[in-house]
Amino acid sequence: MAKQTPTLMDQIVSLCKRRGFIYQASEIYGGMGNTYDYGPLGVELLRRVKDAWWGAMVTERADVVGLDSAIIQNPKTWETSGHVGGFSDPMVDCKKCKGRFRADKLQDARCLEKPSKIPGECDGELTEPREFNMMFKTNVGPVEDTGSVAYLRPETAQGIFLNFKNVLDSARIKPPFGIAQIGKSFRNEITPGNFVFRTREFEQAEMEYFVPPAEDQQWFDHWVEARHQWYIDFGVNPDKLRLREHDPKELAHYAKATTDIEYHYPFGWGELEGIANRTDFDLSRHSEASGTDLLYFDPQTKEKYTPYVIEPAGGINRMALTFMIDAYEEQQLEKDTRVVLHFHPEIAPITAAVFPLVKKDGMPEKAQAVAAMLRKARFATFYDEKAAIGRRYRRQDEVGTPFCVTIDGDTMETDVVTVRHRDSMEQEKVKISELVGYLYEAKTNWTRP
Amino acid sequence: MAKQTPTLMDQIVSLCKRRGFIYQASEIYGGMGNTYDYGPLGVELLRRVKDAWWGAMVTERADVVGLDSAIIQNPKTWETSGHVGGFSDPMVDCKKCKGRFRADKLQDARCLEKPSKIPGECDGELTEPREFNMMFKTNVGPVEDTGSVAYLRPETAQGIFLNFKNVLDSARIKPPFGIAQIGKSFRNEITPGNFVFRTREFEQAEMEYFVPPAEDQQWFDHWVEARHQWYIDFGVNPDKLRLREHDPKELAHYAKATTDIEYHYPFGWGELEGIANRTDFDLSRHSEASGTDLLYFDPQTKEKYTPYVIEPAGGINRMALTFMIDAYEEQQLEKDTRVVLHFHPEIAPITAAVFPLVKKDGMPEKAQAVAAMLRKARFATFYDEKAAIGRRYRRQDEVGTPFCVTIDGDTMETDVVTVRHRDSMEQEKVKISELVGYLYEAKTNWTRP
Repeated sequence: MAKQTPTLMDQIVSLCKRRGFIYQASEIYGGMGNTYDYGPLGVELLRRVKDAWWGAMVTERADVVGLDSAIIQNPKTWETSGHVGGFSDPMVDCKKCKGRFRADKLQDARCLEKPSKIPGECDGELTEPREFNMMFKTNVGPVEDTGSVAYLRPETAQGIFLNFKNVLDSARIKPPFGIAQIGKSFRNEITPGNFVFRTREFEQAEMEYFVPPAEDQQWFDHWVEARHQWYIDFGVNPDKLRLREHDPKELAHYAKATTDIEYHYPFGWGELEGIANRTDFDLSRHSEASGTDLLYFDPQTKEKYTPYVIEPAGGINRMALTFMIDAYEEQQLEKDTRVVLHFHPEIAPITAAVFPLVKKDGMPEKAQAVAAMLRKARFATFYDEKAAIGRRYRRQDEVGTPFCVTIDGDTMETDVVTVRHRDSMEQEKVKISELVGYLYEAKTNWTRP
Repeated sequence: MAKQTPTLMDQIVSLCKRRGFIYQASEIYGGMGNTYDYGPLGVELLRRVKDAWWGAMVTERADVVGLDSAIIQNPKTWETSGHVGGFSDPMVDCKKCKGRFRADKLQDARCLEKPSKIPGECDGELTEPREFNMMFKTNVGPVEDTGSVAYLRPETAQGIFLNFKNVLDSARIKPPFGIAQIGKSFRNEITPGNFVFRTREFEQAEMEYFVPPAEDQQWFDHWVEARHQWYIDFGVNPDKLRLREHDPKELAHYAKATTDIEYHYPFGWGELEGIANRTDFDLSRHSEASGTDLLYFDPQTKEKYTPYVIEPAGGINRMALTFMIDAYEEQQLEKDTRVVLHFHPEIAPITAAVFPLVKKDGMPEKAQAVAAMLRKARFATFYDEKAAIGRRYRRQDEVGTPFCVTIDGDTMETDVVTVRHRDSMEQEKVKISELVGYLYEAKTNWTRP
């Protein structure tokens, strides 16, 4: 087990680069620490994960609306939220090699002069730990002075709290209701992050669910259950998921309770998503600091109160990595081995690949017409006419394409194509005129193999 | 005309705030210059515009793939691209009031001490203009020194050029082909921006289309035409669009030719999107600076060349604003006036609103069941049971909802609902079992009134 686990991550990193899921950012300039770019398949994977999240969290729900707030807000936001004062890691400096290291992760750090040594265990003296803020700073406007300092948001949540009143005033909703947001957040992480598990910039997906204070526990339980189920609905192996309640001493300063949904990664159990009871902490603080009343007035009970907030918060990139790790299989077949990603068809970057059996007799033209028809129906479609058909299937298995559509001699006479299913490798004959409907059905009825 | 035009913008700004399209960012803290947050309807509008762009530019095309590159790249990227040296505005300082102003926009600036005066026309002496870089700077890693300086990207295009080879190596495509990206870009704009027409952070949509050098003109023409048509396809009034070729002296340093698609805004003609022929400028520069070969080798002709690049580039926020301005109408009816947004149904934030005619006799429950069915089919659906039916129609007209579905006494007996169309205000009877299909059809067959 200890031997296999690094190998799986290596294989996934290699597959990601080779097939265009994920590249190292700025690679031609020697890279950029903890930063990645998403290639043609990676960006489609992210899009599917975002759509699946938004669909379940906003579109399908009557009680949740969306929001898209700016990355650079008025800096008072982060003073009030506690991030300017408290969003930091303890760092030590080595007086000899001048390196700076996380005090709580010294075991993972290496002396700059003697890389085989741990700082402190070489002969350099370490300073006392100092707090290092993880927010990226910048300057806004024409003058670089302290008056113009601003921050890249370290979380999307605060943008939601700032707009609580705006949404209440314009969207005709009342507690219990949620405001959901997907967007980039930035953290100046010093420690390396297990590929895209932890990166300096990441696409966050957060929902703040505002409830009457007395209903906090029931809604906390609801969202832990709903978010856990969402991963299972989109194909994640339930045996690799677990719920972990935070110890009281582990809780963030704003939280009354937190439960993590953890996944069993190749490098161990890790947080996939967290559900926190943030109480009325944020609304109360912003209300006090801004002088703007952030209460809810219930016209029925005539009661005025600050809602409690239940927050399911995850990262789209980490979700995508998890779907990929979970979907990955090296499958022993009778004569060979195939690498296959068993993505849920709603998550797969390519929905259908279209092949002419051979590159003649009008088959490529016919196949291209079928591909164009599927693209017009907004299926992500890949056309491939190169190499033997078996090899083309394998290429699609490796990137998780659920359906391969082959045009052969029969098709030219009968307008019937062969649909080959990724997981079972079974083949079915389908009329071209019924193909779009057939694939919709097959997507919907997919079950985890 | 001169009197009416500001009024239309004011009305749109007011509608945006009142109905939850767009709020001033950090409003409770006094705002943040040139920065806006998108509310429940605004975020859905942005999502539709992004999906329409991605659908036409990537999903429906066999020759274009997507990408999602990081916002903070290795700073050498911006040295090579010319942004560190040249992406700047000329600024002057007033020696008396200490204000800093754009030298080329002094007419719009106001002295800090005598706000009724233009700098230079008050008694403060101005410095000579100095170049002020518009990129936001930050520091990456644990130490704030020049070695750790990085920039927020001012355009998404460079992230595409950096990955040209990665995409070629992994995606099995060859020129002519495109790489498309949607993502945030940041510019430290000093001048105010006509609401969301120009903002400090904005969602950019760019596509770099790589072609053999000899084919640059034909593809330039193709993309000018395709992008122009895209706006018309999604409902923009063709009479309000025009194409404008850049003068040779107006061209950016990297461009051989540029054509802007302009829209006639309430504040005059303005750039909606630009199509540029960037030649081989970017790939050649990055190739030279990085030492990485960014050529394309054509296996058929055995030729090696640096492709030319045709770039259609726009901003999602500006597109959304344009769709909104263009869709806006105050319509005189027989007895009253209605405000209506004639959004294309693919662009409208809410696709269907569902109303019980009255709040009794089981109609609310039935209507909620119909709303849930539409949500499950991933239609953005709004349920409303408050106020008279006519007033509910008007509320939906104002935010551009193309279809209102009413459940009345008949529905309780026959399962037939009334669908009311926004533009014509005509009503049709539709069976609940056929409603999803009916709305799909109606969306597809919509034409500009």
